[in-house]
Amino acid sequence: MKLAMLSGGVGGARLARGMAALADVDLTVIVNVGDDDHFYGLAVSPDIDTVIYTMVGREGPHGWGLKDDMFAVMNALDALPIDTTFRVGDGDLATNLFRTDRLAAGWSLTWITTALASAYGVAGTILPATDDPLRTQVKIAEGSWVDFQEYFVVRRHADEVEDVRFKGAGYCRPAPGVIEAIESAEALIIGPSNPVLSIWPILAIPAIAEAVAAKPMVMGISPLISGSALKGPAHRVLSSLGFGASTHGVASAYGGLLTDLVIDSADAADASKVSVPRIHVTDTRMPDLVASTRLAQAVVDLVTSRPTSWGRI
Amino acid sequence: MKLAMLSGGVGGARLARGMAALADVDLTVIVNVGDDDHFYGLAVSPDIDTVIYTMVGREGPHGWGLKDDMFAVMNALDALPIDTTFRVGDGDLATNLFRTDRLAAGWSLTWITTALASAYGVAGTILPATDDPLRTQVKIAEGSWVDFQEYFVVRRHADEVEDVRFKGAGYCRPAPGVIEAIESAEALIIGPSNPVLSIWPILAIPAIAEAVAAKPMVMGISPLISGSALKGPAHRVLSSLGFGASTHGVASAYGGLLTDLVIDSADAADASKVSVPRIHVTDTRMPDLVASTRLAQAVVDLVTSRPTSWGRI
Repeated sequence: MKLAMLSGGVGGARLARGMAALADVDLTVIVNVGDDDHFYGLAVSPDIDTVIYTMVGREGPHGWGLKDDMFAVMNALDALPIDTTFRVGDGDLATNLFRTDRLAAGWSLTWITTALASAYGVAGTILPATDDPLRTQVKIAEGSWVDFQEYFVVRRHADEVEDVRFKGAGYCRPAPGVIEAIESAEALIIGPSNPVLSIWPILAIPAIAEAVAAKPMVMGISPLISGSALKGPAHRVLSSLGFGASTHGVASAYGGLLTDLVIDSADAADASKVSVPRIHVTDTRMPDLVASTRLAQAVVDLVTSRPTSWGRI
Repeated sequence: MKLAMLSGGVGGARLARGMAALADVDLTVIVNVGDDDHFYGLAVSPDIDTVIYTMVGREGPHGWGLKDDMFAVMNALDALPIDTTFRVGDGDLATNLFRTDRLAAGWSLTWITTALASAYGVAGTILPATDDPLRTQVKIAEGSWVDFQEYFVVRRHADEVEDVRFKGAGYCRPAPGVIEAIESAEALIIGPSNPVLSIWPILAIPAIAEAVAAKPMVMGISPLISGSALKGPAHRVLSSLGFGASTHGVASAYGGLLTDLVIDSADAADASKVSVPRIHVTDTRMPDLVASTRLAQAVVDLVTSRPTSWGRI
């Protein structure tokens, strides 16, 4: 079964790993690039790298970087007069050096991502949403817009998000293969990522929004459990933007795009209040590969059965 | 005593280390930047880094990088589809990440070099010859010019050098402090570096050549011992450019600029054939700090005594 998934970092990456473990799924993960930035002169693509590392079980414990990575370079950098808040492990640095070198050599982010995924042995296709420049910016106070990484890493997402914007998104073309993957998929899955900060930047690309809206089945997986994100500020952002830190808030943030919404058992009571055609309740926690595969299988079963109403799965 | 020294990598760096160990010397090392390049998207300045590392006794064993450095990043890069001929250790990478980051932030190479030298605890001042772009290129065959690092690292300086050029040198301004250091020095020392590939690029900057030529005492230290460089292709380049791999060739390469030339005892027989006003013979090998300091002291003594003829020192 062909599936396409929109994804940010950790949550989407874990579901993608589960999908890739299923024998009959041909998955294309379309990854947010709004968080891409430059650190130490290197081109970083945090969500792409998290998806690659997670899909082969090598992700770091804190939602970024590689497992068991060393920090010899960062430790040396600490001795120099430079802000080293953004920590990059040695193996992760190699990824970023490779990307920076190849971009300078004229490769597209798509080619680079394909080469990295291949080197790491990823099963499935990982595509950046776009090869064009797209930058998520966050309004943290009246008149004060900061780049995503400034908000997220440097300021440790402590600020209340008053608004978001996606610089350049209107001019971005989908990366090669993105539209084809969406159109040929049985269903478009939206991973359990931050709707505002991870998925909106993908949907801000006009041709992608159009292709997604045309799908008969668009299934979102809520990133909230009991109204809170397991990782990151999704609930706080949904709240400060007025959607509410709830299943209803997640559905509202997608503004009628979803045909299906998968929510956690802990939020089953929310199901009736949400204006999405079909709500499905299951365990959405993915602490390990077994859980990821189980949720992935549940999603695949839903796509296969095309249920007509909500229910426990 | 104030001294200014022009230097490339290893040889000049070792003499600079010896100079810095002398209590009464206030040394400014003016370093070649013609080898600067970009690898993996990083701005590398090999000669500057070699001078910094060597002056604090932390240089790597092969003429580049740091002693006892690890290569975790390079080993990870080896798994990716990229040319990893240019090996950069983890600690050395930190230096290059710092430089790349700060250049992007608008710092000059001079500020960056000062910050690095300070962090490494260098006694003395290290200045790039210029903050402006200057690139050494080598002609390896008719119509075939390559950048220095392509010649030196990628092609392992195996080609015969037919000609050299210093792109942009005519438009380069000396880095802040360079001219002042040359003018206020008791003497201008030219380290035992490759005359053509390490010193010519510095002298290709018009204002530096002018300031050096105006000095009453310009003392070169020959990089050759028994007609051969201890490290690198100096003798081969002097030969292929027609100067000859000899003391005479070194003097000729400096074209009348030298008032004094220090040569190794092994080449004492050459002394009479060389058209430099004063030739001095001593042991110029610097395998360790004791030897570096001894040669540095000999140079300082020569500057102090201002000898009127050549002799054994």
